Parts: sequence; structure tokens; C-alpha cells
Amino acid sequence: MGKGINIYGELVLIGGSGNPELAQKISASLGVPLLDVKIMVFSNENIFIQLQQSVRSKDVFIIQPTCSPVSYNVMELLIMIDTVRRASAGRVTAVVPFYSYARSDKKDKPRIPITAKLIADMIATAGADRFMTVDLHAGQIQGFFNIPTDELTAFPLLTHYFMVKKIPNLVIVAADLGFAKKARNFAQVLGAPVAFVEKRRDGSETECLQIIGDVRGKDAIIVDDEVDRGTTIAGAARSLRAAGARDVYACFVHATFSDGAMQRLAETDFREIVFTDTERIYPEKLLSNMTVIPLGPWLARVIDAVHHGLSVGQTLSEYEPTY
Amino acid sequence: MGKGINIYGELVLIGGSGNPELAQKISASLGVPLLDVKIMVFSNENIFIQLQQSVRSKDVFIIQPTCSPVSYNVMELLIMIDTVRRASAGRVTAVVPFYSYARSDKKDKPRIPITAKLIADMIATAGADRFMTVDLHAGQIQGFFNIPTDELTAFPLLTHYFMVKKIPNLVIVAADLGFAKKARNFAQVLGAPVAFVEKRRDGSETECLQIIGDVRGKDAIIVDDEVDRGTTIAGAARSLRAAGARDVYACFVHATFSDGAMQRLAETDFREIVFTDTERIYPEKLLSNMTVIPLGPWLARVIDAVHHGLSVGQTLSEYEPTY
Amino acid sequence: MGKGINIYGELVLIGGSGNPELAQKISASLGVPLLDVKIMVFSNENIFIQLQQSVRSKDVFIIQPTCSPVSYNVMELLIMIDTVRRASAGRVTAVVPFYSYARSDKKDKPRIPITAKLIADMIATAGADRFMTVDLHAGQIQGFFNIPTDELTAFPLLTHYFMVKKIPNLVIVAADLGFAKKARNFAQVLGAPVAFVEKRRDGSETECLQIIGDVRGKDAIIVDDEVDRGTTIAGAARSLRAAGARDVYACFVHATFSDGAMQRLAETDFREIVFTDTERIYPEKLLSNMTVIPLGPWLARVIDAVHHGLSVGQTLSEYEPTY
Amino acid sequence: MGKGINIYGELVLIGGSGNPELAQKISASLGVPLLDVKIMVFSNENIFIQLQQSVRSKDVFIIQPTCSPVSYNVMELLIMIDTVRRASAGRVTAVVPFYSYARSDKKDKPRIPITAKLIADMIATAGADRFMTVDLHAGQIQGFFNIPTDELTAFPLLTHYFMVKKIPNLVIVAADLGFAKKARNFAQVLGAPVAFVEKRRDGSETECLQIIGDVRGKDAIIVDDEVDRGTTIAGAARSLRAAGARDVYACFVHATFSDGAMQRLAETDFREIVFTDTERIYPEKLLSNMTVIPLGPWLARVIDAVHHGLSVGQTLSEYEPTY
Amino acid sequence: MGKGINIYGELVLIGGSGNPELAQKISASLGVPLLDVKIMVFSNENIFIQLQQSVRSKDVFIIQPTCSPVSYNVMELLIMIDTVRRASAGRVTAVVPFYSYARSDKKDKPRIPITAKLIADMIATAGADRFMTVDLHAGQIQGFFNIPTDELTAFPLLTHYFMVKKIPNLVIVAADLGFAKKARNFAQVLGAPVAFVEKRRDGSETECLQIIGDVRGKDAIIVDDEVDRGTTIAGAARSLRAAGARDVYACFVHATFSDGAMQRLAETDFREIVFTDTERIYPEKLLSNMTVIPLGPWLARVIDAVHHGLSVGQTLSEYEPTY
Amino acid sequence: MGKGINIYGELVLIGGSGNPELAQKISASLGVPLLDVKIMVFSNENIFIQLQQSVRSKDVFIIQPTCSPVSYNVMELLIMIDTVRRASAGRVTAVVPFYSYARSDKKDKPRIPITAKLIADMIATAGADRFMTVDLHAGQIQGFFNIPTDELTAFPLLTHYFMVKKIPNLVIVAADLGFAKKARNFAQVLGAPVAFVEKRRDGSETECLQIIGDVRGKDAIIVDDEVDRGTTIAGAARSLRAAGARDVYACFVHATFSDGAMQRLAETDFREIVFTDTERIYPEKLLSNMTVIPLGPWLARVIDAVHHGLSVGQTLSEYEPTY
Repeated sequence: MGKGINIYGELVLIGGSGNPELAQKISASLGVPLLDVKIMVFSNENIFIQLQQSVRSKDVFIIQPTCSPVSYNVMELLIMIDTVRRASAGRVTAVVPFYSYARSDKKDKPRIPITAKLIADMIATAGADRFMTVDLHAGQIQGFFNIPTDELTAFPLLTHYFMVKKIPNLVIVAADLGFAKKARNFAQVLGAPVAFVEKRRDGSETECLQIIGDVRGKDAIIVDDEVDRGTTIAGAARSLRAAGARDVYACFVHATFSDGAMQRLAETDFREIVFTDTERIYPEKLLSNMTVIPLGPWLARVIDAVHHGLSVGQTLSEYEPTY
Repeated sequence: MGKGINIYGELVLIGGSGNPELAQKISASLGVPLLDVKIMVFSNENIFIQLQQSVRSKDVFIIQPTCSPVSYNVMELLIMIDTVRRASAGRVTAVVPFYSYARSDKKDKPRIPITAKLIADMIATAGADRFMTVDLHAGQIQGFFNIPTDELTAFPLLTHYFMVKKIPNLVIVAADLGFAKKARNFAQVLGAPVAFVEKRRDGSETECLQIIGDVRGKDAIIVDDEVDRGTTIAGAARSLRAAGARDVYACFVHATFSDGAMQRLAETDFREIVFTDTERIYPEKLLSNMTVIPLGPWLARVIDAVHHGLSVGQTLSEYEPTY
Repeated sequence: MGKGINIYGELVLIGGSGNPELAQKISASLGVPLLDVKIMVFSNENIFIQLQQSVRSKDVFIIQPTCSPVSYNVMELLIMIDTVRRASAGRVTAVVPFYSYARSDKKDKPRIPITAKLIADMIATAGADRFMTVDLHAGQIQGFFNIPTDELTAFPLLTHYFMVKKIPNLVIVAADLGFAKKARNFAQVLGAPVAFVEKRRDGSETECLQIIGDVRGKDAIIVDDEVDRGTTIAGAARSLRAAGARDVYACFVHATFSDGAMQRLAETDFREIVFTDTERIYPEKLLSNMTVIPLGPWLARVIDAVHHGLSVGQTLSEYEPTY
Repeated sequence: MGKGINIYGELVLIGGSGNPELAQKISASLGVPLLDVKIMVFSNENIFIQLQQSVRSKDVFIIQPTCSPVSYNVMELLIMIDTVRRASAGRVTAVVPFYSYARSDKKDKPRIPITAKLIADMIATAGADRFMTVDLHAGQIQGFFNIPTDELTAFPLLTHYFMVKKIPNLVIVAADLGFAKKARNFAQVLGAPVAFVEKRRDGSETECLQIIGDVRGKDAIIVDDEVDRGTTIAGAARSLRAAGARDVYACFVHATFSDGAMQRLAETDFREIVFTDTERIYPEKLLSNMTVIPLGPWLARVIDAVHHGLSVGQTLSEYEPTY
Repeated sequence: MGKGINIYGELVLIGGSGNPELAQKISASLGVPLLDVKIMVFSNENIFIQLQQSVRSKDVFIIQPTCSPVSYNVMELLIMIDTVRRASAGRVTAVVPFYSYARSDKKDKPRIPITAKLIADMIATAGADRFMTVDLHAGQIQGFFNIPTDELTAFPLLTHYFMVKKIPNLVIVAADLGFAKKARNFAQVLGAPVAFVEKRRDGSETECLQIIGDVRGKDAIIVDDEVDRGTTIAGAARSLRAAGARDVYACFVHATFSDGAMQRLAETDFREIVFTDTERIYPEKLLSNMTVIPLGPWLARVIDAVHHGLSVGQTLSEYEPTY
Repeated sequence: MGKGINIYGELVLIGGSGNPELAQKISASLGVPLLDVKIMVFSNENIFIQLQQSVRSKDVFIIQPTCSPVSYNVMELLIMIDTVRRASAGRVTAVVPFYSYARSDKKDKPRIPITAKLIADMIATAGADRFMTVDLHAGQIQGFFNIPTDELTAFPLLTHYFMVKKIPNLVIVAADLGFAKKARNFAQVLGAPVAFVEKRRDGSETECLQIIGDVRGKDAIIVDDEVDRGTTIAGAARSLRAAGARDVYACFVHATFSDGAMQRLAETDFREIVFTDTERIYPEKLLSNMTVIPLGPWLARVIDAVHHGLSVGQTLSEYEPTY
């Protein structure tokens, strides 16, 4: 694709165990095969990696979201970076479409860690020259890195999906107040109003949800960056229905789906659940109302731009999704 | 005050030019005089610092918010740290109650800096061993530091102030959606509902503000972390009135008050404007409806706890404001 | 115990999930309770840690071998160090009695990692001031650290155990040629000759073992640093018997026992299997011919010496095991 | 110009606010337009920078002397470096023709900073890969940097200027004893003798100047690296006249001209005052006896050589000024 | 030779004083002349280096084993790296075929240094981007470096030499138990059995050597990584003869030959002594039974591969010695 | 002596091989015996160090000027620091009264090293927490260190020596123009005028010296920081005599005396040659007109102050030499 100049050597793609399907799709889009890598776990649980082809003086992109199994995938990422660096790569970019531990990004209680910073330091110490990711829980995590970072946002792909649908009389709903500003931006693109779900613990242990803003008679899209157990958006959907909303959609980037999330989502009456494949997707487990926005071709374009020294902003602005 | 053990040497306080009155109040609360320091600016604008007393093997706290003049105060802070470190202090803590540039904390546009991280790196490189601050614009900035950091929040002092007032029928209003979650927390402490001001640019250049949530007939407290030009809270106050709110209060931590802020606030009909003295306060310029919550005694307690190795959380939980 | 001076604050012990029994024994020996720490794993697999008591200006020892589950325990160790450092400890010592990945200590094939170095860098980057461990697979791993390191060897405890037994006509056998020199040292302490097992792959895939040295009619102690799957020592034991040895003992420091090791050891005719508790021991799973040398009291003495600034060498030379 | 090979990407020039005219001249000489950069100061005094064009994989030179306003220009330089680095430049060279704070280069009094080192560390920490400057107050400041540094000296341009003038019976005078050796070198090039001005405070507060060496009946060129307030060279000129010198010239690299310098120089009877444009020059303020040696074309040649991997020494030795 | 792409600039070779003949041979093999460098020692013993040609944006390999005089050669290496880095080389590779101090690689006694790590840190701090060496005493020393490292082993060249000789009825003997595993590998390549020399100090000061394994009637090759004083292999040779071995060969990589080694080797009845020229060889001093395996052409091939970004493993596997 | 508080543990003194007599005198003055250290050089020239006593949690001062043999003493210093740091010292101060390579402090020619910076980096990387030295060739070298540095100047001791002598009609002469400013300071303390020796190479190779300033009929003290080969001061003395000076004294801090310096000084007609013992002194070689100012008691006072956290400036101002 790229017509720019590359000063870091030939493009090499490596797919870790985190999301091999995504790595495969990026590879297919770029027409560059994944490097042959042997990844083993010994009986003593030690991860062993051996690159079967040379990466000397090459421009290596390691594609590894730190999705489940998290501790394993983090370790594999770090060991892979170490391997590639010691094998004398020209440049090493860690492509981590889903950055786990992103919610551990500040000390909001005494004597807790900032694990998102710790992992940023680990990635840099292991030897990555650059970092690329998609929709961090907080944009400030970019600043946890001193190596250059490209944080991409998949929201234009998600808003595009809904714009094409042309749903009349929409309202955009932030499932969490920490997401209020991004929900407003989402709403602005779609020309829709915004509403909020306020979660509050009043005296007793039970949480009570309250809708702030006008949703009656409208179709609502609940937006968030990540869905983990699904309790937040399931609760939001119920509250929206109780407040008079019509169809309820869910839209988010990262589908963690842990601990009974699938069942919880299945039991909630969503019109459609839209998300991307930053984390590994098991197609056979998907619900019929789930739509996956594929990021492979889009990430391929960005990697190509970075490799050829072209503007990523320009590249993204020219990107046209095909759905 | 402290009964703990100190392992870093005798307590020394240094006040920079950023907020000498605050430094003086901390000193008075602790009963520890400020170190005698000569700070000069040469005709070539070079800042020169000389400590007039030894800090060798001492536990030094440098009190310097990076308020206006910002570039000067940042440079003075860094040079002071360099001076103290090279003078063989036992430990150096940068106490920066107001951390300027905190809004430059992520790349939300292409090709911009993350200056809040840059300054964090500068402070650590200059030689600070620890960092202490009050209410960062984003808590994630803690993670910009690898040196241990104490971020204190003055909101308990602010909510305490309003709890004592016992205003009935209150609503707490976030002037900016990025502050929605903290406004909710503020509201929860006061047992009040929360509402939001949504700012949106629709087509034309003019911003239009909209109140989301119920404010009619209520007294409203607009809360934020910092007031700079004052346009946001002034606009919010007008919108609240238009939406039927009764008395409007403003409450925030950092009073930057740049570029006609004073006049703008004077022209808006606030019942009361409540803030702290993290930035330098010129008493003669204050409006009659302004109330300053003094942080000196409170910061003194924290510095004492840090010096004596006592729990800061415990210390703060036992703190009783005297107003 | 210690009579020295401590300049890093009060002694604090923290036990991670790696080997809580060992941490408990160290705590009991020192008469210092383990710090109250909350360790949780969220549904999204993120590890969360909160110290329930202050460690400000204290001398903290984190006891965490990186035994099974390895990836988890490594992550927990790093997050714990981050937590303790950010909580302003006076000094942080990582006590890692078993250091996993120690065999990944050099590039003996092209394009592989040096994970033992990676983890050393991680520990230092996370914020440990010191590192303490027991019998590294290769002593050179000490040099992977720039922070001061105490590598202790449990072999004097193991040789002491056999000296007390006074077995006549012994031969010491290195199960692996990489352990030849340490086996010689072991033999020298016991005044016994040494022999070696040579493993060679000749043409076909089958390994063939050969005893080098004289073992006929002797009782043999196979020595090694770690037993993982147990195939090496089981094979060695069979070869020794075939070569005419009488009773065969196994003696090693780290009992990893992965992947059917227990059954493999049970099926081999060992007179006695002697090892330490650097890795977590499940007493109910132990074979009747297994003897565990407890390291708790011994590590307690060393921690006490480090805390009080006393010579570790002197402390160890005065240590008398009680079995 | 250059015929060498460049391995860091396409040449990009950025001009900061420090000396836009100089940046413009370098750009013109190279035939490479300055990158379009938006530099703003918000009402809260925060500097904001946005590159309007991509610098990804490019070889970026940031031209920013840290002349007046010093604190601002230092901050702008650091923020610009951070911006360019995070925008994934291939290489970042800070071109700082005038390096302020260079006199704060050692601790010659107790408990003072070494600000020249601090700023060197800031530049490297912000992310510069290389540093280029002109005539440091002390050459040792090169060693404050670990990144490769090119310190250029403009003295060959200055001596060339006087050689062309062919003034007979010259003496070169060091205005300050710290400049004695460089004055000797200057004299040697011109084949002239050297004399010194000794400044001494004897008992009272008044400084007394004394000429050491023979100046009677000679035309004198006072040489120095920088003129700040102008008191030193004005005093030297008066002493030279008193000692029987005829015409007095002043010649230096950096024209800081602070605090009444212009008036002071105007009131002193200089035949000619010759200096370069490392710092920003306001042509309308220049005295009629002032001559500015333009460094733009010369710096352009050096930047071109660095970009193309050509010898800077060779390039400079072939440079022919056109005046 | 190379057909790959190079991204670090033109190839430059620099030969230090450590082994100028080896540097010369590498240069001849590559057809690339050594850079003209002035190396002087001033009367105050300070080493002074000046590169007589530009290395700006070039790919520089500094060939400098740290053989005798060790302290001098280490210092010269570090100063050379500093010189090359500050001269703006594109990449700096330290080629250190013999790495002195490699035996100081762990703390096996209390309160000793790990000098091999110290020197690794020095090399990286001085500014090397990469490190290349031959047969480290312990492979783990690779992990002392965070910069990419290529450790080459000359053993395939040594085994090739003996394979060509086709000596029947061989046994391979490890002179030191720490070399047991590598001796086994050597033996496996030659299809020969292995035996060991055990050195033990029993009570008295006298060492007693014992052969473990069967050597009677066989020709023996004593293998080791380095011969220093020669006492170990001379003693081994005598013991082998006493145990009935026939011809005895010595084979090792590094010929340090200090302190009477030459005489000691001359007095021992070796059939042949085979080693490489990693350390400086004085041909006039060689014994008639000594054979030097020249590494120049082989290192030239590796440097060429590294320069052109080709696989070193592949390159070495295709290398055919010409003796 | 000290009455302050020490927070780094008990005082420990270590004397390297650089100047054992000076270390002994410091030890005697402080009443603190030198630590028992074994320093050996193996036959392969590797330096081996073992501390015979514990330094755990102690405040260690290593006394090691880098005088002749320079390369050896630098290496020994670095290895000693590594040893002490890895032995868990509480704080490590490198006391280097003579800092060799100080003249390699800038790039005043193309493609040369800045070895004084390199060695500063080595000292810090090896693990020193602080650096102490006496009269650096250029004070800027302090800035080569980021660790706190105490540069002491012995000139008050030297001027005191001459003040006591009360020589009338003195002139102070800088042997080198780079020393002009310090000579002026020296002169100012003694109330004497100053003169300069200008060295110039005119066309031919022969240097020609010229006295600038009035010396006729006066007693002259040539001052400098270091005397190496002695050619500069010997030439200066001859020129002074030729210009009519009466008695000529030489006064300097560091007596390197390399390459025939002794004979050169003996052949020049000095009234007295005064210097300190920063470098090793061989009393039997001293000329009868040489006077050594002992620095032991003075350095002891400074070390004591640093150890006890007392002001070094205050300590020095109260110091009274006893000669």
C-alpha cells in the first residue's frame, strides 16, 4: 500500500497467542505473511519462544492484545519483545489492541498499585521502540509511555456503523459517568442527544441506577469502552426500558466478556450488540444479536503507514469501512 | 506533631516564589521556619538560587505550585530541586499543590505534546525523590511519575464546608462532562442529586449549553477542579438560572483566574464562590462573595506525616477543619 | 535477634500467594506478623492488591517465589513491588526463594529470549531496592541485577542432613553435566567421590545415559538444583542401579514437580528424596520417602541480618539446623 | 547541497519562537521550507504546540536559541521536542545557537545549582537525539550531554571579518580573564599581540580595572563570547582609552543586550561593534556602529552536512563567508 | 559479500590496540580498509584518540579484545566507543573476541565484585549499540548486556580441525568440571566418549587430580575455553598419561598464556596445542607444536552479515574453513 | 569530631592502591581504621577485590585518586565501587582527590572523546552515590556528575602557606592562560598583582613564551592546578628570569611529575616548589626545595562533615592548617 520511505528495514509481522485471528487478518490485508515463530509452554510453565526466521535489521510489529489469559499474554508479550530485540530487529513496535489493566491507572485508594503504568514500563524495558493500541480506558495512559505511542480510536468505525443504519429518534447513553464526555462526542457525530446512567450506593449495599436526561420513546445506544461482566450495560438497559426507552443497543470497543457475561447479555433484551475484535472472539459463542466490527484491515492500514513513515491521521481519515 | 520515626534526616521547608503565603502558613502550622534561600533573577533573565543554610542529610520539602507566571515557576521549581539535590539533601519532596499543564495529559489530537508527562519527567530528572500535589486534573497523572507520589484531594474540605451550611434542596452540577464522575461523588457525600451541563458546537461556531438532569427550584453548586477564564462556570450559571435553578454556588479547588476571569465572575450572579489557596491569592482582588478554604494547616499535617513515616490516609481521616 | 542498627525503618514482612506457608514460617521465626494485604483477582483476571496497613518509611521484605502458577506469581510479585514502592516504603527487598525461568539464562540457540534477565529487569523496574534468592540455576544470574543481591545456598543445609546420617561408602552423582562442579563441591564436603551421568542423543531420538565414574557397590546421592518433571533423576537412578549402585538418594533444592513428576518419582526406587520448601509444598501429596528441609527459620535469620545491617556470611556460618 | 547518504529520513526544519528570523534564513539557504507549526499560549499561560504536517520517520531539526524570554523559550523548546518525538520523528536534533544559563556551569559557591547541566538533562529527557549549538560559554558543557553534540564556533567568521579589514597595529583584548585563552587564539589568527583587563574588588565595593599588556597607540579589539548588560566591555573600552589605545572595537558572538545595554554601548565610544545573530536581533534597535555577522547560511551548511552524514569539520573548512 | 539491505550507514572498521593483526585480517577479508585512527598515550598515561576520518551516520565496528594489557585495553575500548558515539556514528558495535574478567561473573564468595557485569555496563554506558564476542567463559554473560549481543562460538572450527585429522580411538577430556557439558558437546560432534579431570584439595594445600572416565590406551584431547597460566591443562596432561592415555592434545579458544605459561606448556608433552587468535599472538614466541586457527575470515563474514541485516546463524552454517 | 546526625550507617573508610599513604593519614585523623580489604592482581592481570569485613548498611568512603598507574587505578576504583555496592553498603562515596583525564573535558578538535565525562559516567554506573574531589582542572566537570559532588579547593591551604611567609613585592604568574582567572583570585588573596605567560606557536614549530604584565624586580609565584612533565612551569620560570624577576616559586595542587619532570624541575632554579599530596608522593624522590602540603587532616574533616550531615563550607571555613 504505502508509497513512503521506510528507514527501519523490511516489514515483519508477528502474531502472539493473544488474538491469532486478528493477526492473521492484518497479515492478509497487508499481503505480508506472519513470521514463523515457535511458542511453547514447558511443563514447568515457562514460556519459550524461538523465531524461526531472521528479523535482523527489520521493522517488526508484534500483535498481541493482553486479553484472557491475561497474566500469560502479558508475559508472552514481554518475552516476545525481548526475543525480537535480542535478535537485532531494526525497530520493535508492540501492537496491543486491547490493553488490560487499563483501569488500574491511578491511586484512588491508599496503597494500591498503578498497574497500567507498571506494564507500560515493562513493555519499554523489555525493549519495544514504539507502542500502538486501540481505545485506552483513559487517554492519559499514553503518557505512561516515553516511547512514541499511537492510540487509535475505533469509535469512528462504530459511529459509521450506526450512521449507515439511519435510526431515527436516537439517544446516546453513557453507561458510566466516567464515559460521559466520550458519549457526548459519540452523540454529536450522530446528531443525537445524550443521557447518563448514574450508579449510586445509598446506605445499603444495593446499587441504584438512575437515568439522567430524556430517553422516553427513543431508541437508545448504550456506549462504553469495554464490557467485562456485562452487569453495567445490562443494568443500564433495564433502567432505560423502565424509563420508557424503546429499542436498546449496546456499542463498545473491547469485548472482555468474563464471568457469565454471555448469559447476562443473552438475558437482557438488546436489539443489537456491536463491538470490535480487539480481544479474541470465539465465533461459535456469539449471540445472534451480536455484530463484530473487524479491525484487521484498519490496523493493517495503520501499520503500513507507520512502516512507510506516512501520516497516520491522514491514513485514517481516508479509510472507508466496507460494511 | 508526628510521633513516628524519621529516617531521612531533619525536616526542612523551602518556599519558592509560586505561593509564598501558602509556604508561610505551612511553616507556621508546623512550627518549622522556612529555610533562608536567596532567589534572584539576573538581568539576562537567568534564575539564580542559593541556599543560605545547609540541607545536607536533611528531609527537604520544596513548596512550589506552578501557578502564574507558569514558565518561570516551573523553571524555578526545577532549579530549586537541582540545588537541593546537589547540596546533598537526604530526601527531596516536591510539593506542588497546583500542577499546571495538567490538561495537556494525552494526545487527543495528532502531533501534540503530553506536557504534563514532560514536566513529571523533568521533576524526577532534576532529582526529586517524591512528589506531592493536590487534585490533579486527571488522577492518571500520578502514573506519569515513577517516584512515589501523594495526590491529596481537597474535596473533603469543600464538601465539609457545604455540609456545615446545611443548604436544603441542593443539586450538584458538573460544569464539564469530564467532571461528571467526581460531581457524582461530591453529590453523594452531600446526599444531593446530580446534573450536568452539556456543551456542544452544532454546525455554527456558537457553543450551546444544555442542562441534563433536574435543577428547577433547586439551589445548585457547580463543581469543577479548576477555574481558569471562568467562561465555563459563568455559562453554566446562566444556563442553570434559565432552567429554573435558584441560588447558584461555584466550588472548585484551583483558582487560576486568568484573562478577565475576575470581571466575568463578578458579572455572574453567584451566591458564593468557594475555592482553596493552592495557587497564589491576592486578597485585595477577591470578590466579596468569594470564600477561600486555607490548605496550609492541612498540608502541614500531611508533610509531618510523610516526614515521620506515618500513614497519610490515617492522618487525613483524623483532620478536622476549623471553619 | 539482630543487634545491629537499621537505617531503613521498621521491619515489615509481606507474603505473596507464591508460598504462603513459607512466609508464615519466616514470620513466626522472626516474631513479626505478616502485613495485612488484600490480594484479589477480578473477573477480568486483573490482579488487585491493597495493603491494609501503612508501609511508609519501613523496611519491607516481600516473600514470593515464582513457582506455579508461574505467570500469575511473576505478575503478582511485580504488582506487589509497585504497590509497596508507591506506598513510600523506605526499602523494598524482593525475597524470591525460587526464581523461575532461571534456565532461560543465555542464548544457546538463535533468536530466543533471555527471560531470566528480562524478569530481573522487571523486578528492578517495578521498584525493588534489593533482591534475595536461594540457589539460582546459574550464579551468573546475580549479575543480571544491578540492585544488590543476596543469593543464598541451601546446600550446607542439605549436606548437613546427610552428614548427620553418616552413610558409609557414598558416591555423589551429578544428574546433569552442567551440575558437575557443584556435585564435586557437595562430594568434597561429605568426603565422598563423585560420578556423572552423561546424557547423549546418538543418531536416533532415544537418549542414552551413561555413568562416568565408579559407583559399583556404593550408595549414591544424585544431586541437582531443581527437579521439574523428574525424568532426569529417575533415569539417573535407573542407570545407577544398572551400574551396580546400592541405595539411591535424590537431593535437590527446588521441588517443581510438574507434569507427572510425583508418579514418576513414586515409580522409581529411591531410598529417600530430600529437598527444601522454596516452592509451595502440598503435604498431602508428599511421598513417604520424601524429606523436606524447612528454610523458614534460616531465611528469617538472613532477613533479620539484612534488616539490622549485619553480615549475612557471619549469620549463616553461625546457623545451626535443628534436625 | 549534500551528496552523502541520509539514514534518518527526509530533512525537516522547525523554527521556534526564539529566533524566527534565523530559522527563516536557514530555511532559505537550504531551500527547505519551515514546517507549519501552530504555537499558542493559552490564557492560563500554558504553551500549546501542534505540528500541522507529519514528521513521522523524518530527520527533524528544531531551531530554538534560549534567548529572551528565557524561561518561555526553554519551555517551548522542551515541549517542541516532546511533540516531535511523540509524533514519531526518525531523529530529533535540537539546534540551540545561543545556550542560556551557560554561566551556571559549576558550583563555585556552596549550595547553588548547575543549571546548564539541568537544561542539558531536560533536553535529553524530552527526547532530543542530538544537540547543536554555537560557542558555549565553556566547552565543557558539551560533556553535560550524553547525546552526540556539535558545538560550532563562530570565531573563524569573526576573525575573517577583521582580516578582511586589514587594520594595522592591532591588539586583542580579553575583557574577562576567563576568556584569556580564547583571546590569545583570536590574536594568533590575526597575528596580533594580546592584552588583558583585570577586574578586581579591593576592599571597597568599587571594581577597579587594570590593563595588563601593552596597548598604547594601538587599535584594540575587545573580544568576548557574550555581551549581556555591556558593563564589562564598556568599562574595558574606557580603561583601554585611558591606557592610550586608539580605536576600540568590540567583537563577540552572543548579543544578549539586557537591562540598558543598548544605551550603555551607545554612550561608549566604540569604532565598531561586531556580533552574530544567534539571539534574536531587532534591526530597528541596532546602533549605527553595529555589524551583524549572519549565521543562517553557515548553520544551513552544517545542518545539511549532519543530515547527509558528511563531515562537519570538512564542511566548515570549505565554508567561505560572502562579506 | 552481503546482499542484504543496510539501514545504519556505510561499513566502517576500527582496530584498537588489543589485536591489530586480527583487525587487519578482518579488514583484508572484507576488502574494507581500517579507519585511520590516531591512538596516543600522553606522558601522564592518559589515552588520547582521534579519528582521522569521519564516521558520521556510518555503521562502525570496533575490534578490540580486552587481552593483555587488560586495564589499558579496557580503557582504550571504552574511550574509543565514546569517541565514535560523540562523532555521530549511525551504529556502534563493540567486537570483543576475548572478553577478559569473564570469570568474575558471580559472587561465589562474600563481598566480591561481578566485574564481568561491571564491564558490560561500562560498554553500554560508553555508547555501544551492540556487542559481539567469541566463546564467553559463561554464556550467561550475554544477559549482562541489554544491548543486542552476538556470542559466536569457535568450537565448530576447532572440532572441524580435528574431524579432518581423523584420529581413531579418541577421548575428550574436560580439564575443569565447569567445562563438563561443553566437553560432552565437543565429544558428541567427534563421536568420542568423554572423561573428566577432578581437582580437589584434600586437607593439605596440595591439589590432587583424578581422572573420571576411561582413557587408557586412547588419544586424548583436553578441551577448555581459555588457557591462562597453563597449570590446569599441564596437570591434566600428566594425569592422563599416568592413567594410560596415549597422545595428548590441547584445544581451547582463548590463549592468554600469562605468567610462565609458555614454558609450562613447552615442558609438558603435548602432541599438539590448538587454539585461535582471539587474543594477540606473537608468532615468534609460538611453540612448534602449536596450531593457530585464524578467526579473521570467519569474523569478517559475521560482521558482513550483521551490517547487511542477514542471519548470522545462516551465515555461520554456510561457512567453510579453508584448512 | 562531628556532632551531627548520620542517616546512612556507621562510617567506613577504604583505601585503594592509588594513594595508600593519604588514606592512612585520613584514617589516623579520623581515628577510624581502614577497612581490611584484599586487593590482588591475578596472573591474567584481572584485579580481584574482597572486603574482609562487612559494609552492610554502612556509610563507605573509598579513597582512590586516579594517579599513576592511571588505567589500573581507574579500573580498581570502579571494581571497588561495584564490590562495595553489591555488598549492600548504605551509601558509597568515591573520594578521588586527583581526577585524571580532567583535561579531556571537551571536544576542541573533531572526533575526540570527552574522557572526563566517560569516567564520571563509569563512577556513577558502577554504583557510587556521591563523588568528592579536589581542584578539578575545570570546575564544570562537577556537572558531568548527576550524583551529588563535593569539589574542594586546596588553594586556601596554598595561599595560607604563602601568607605566613610574608614575601614582600610579590607577583602571581599564571603559567597558562587557561589558569588566568584562578591566578587572579590567588593574587587577590595575597594582595599581589598578576602577570601571565603567553605561549604561542608562530609559523615554525618552536614555541615562544612571552610575559604579559610587570614582573621586573619582583618575586614571582607561578601557579597552576597540575604539573605533569614540568615543561610549562620550567619554561615560565626561565622567561620570568629573563624578564627580570627575582626569586621564582612554583605552587600547584596536583604533582603528576611524569616523564622526566623531576630532572626538569631540578634543573630549573626554583626557590621553592609547593604542592599537595593528592597524588602519591615518594618521599625519597623529593627535591630539597619541595614542600608538600598534607591534605589528610583536611580531607578527614570534610569526610566527617559529610558523614554527620554537617555543612562542608562551614567546616572548611573553620579549618586551621597547622604549618
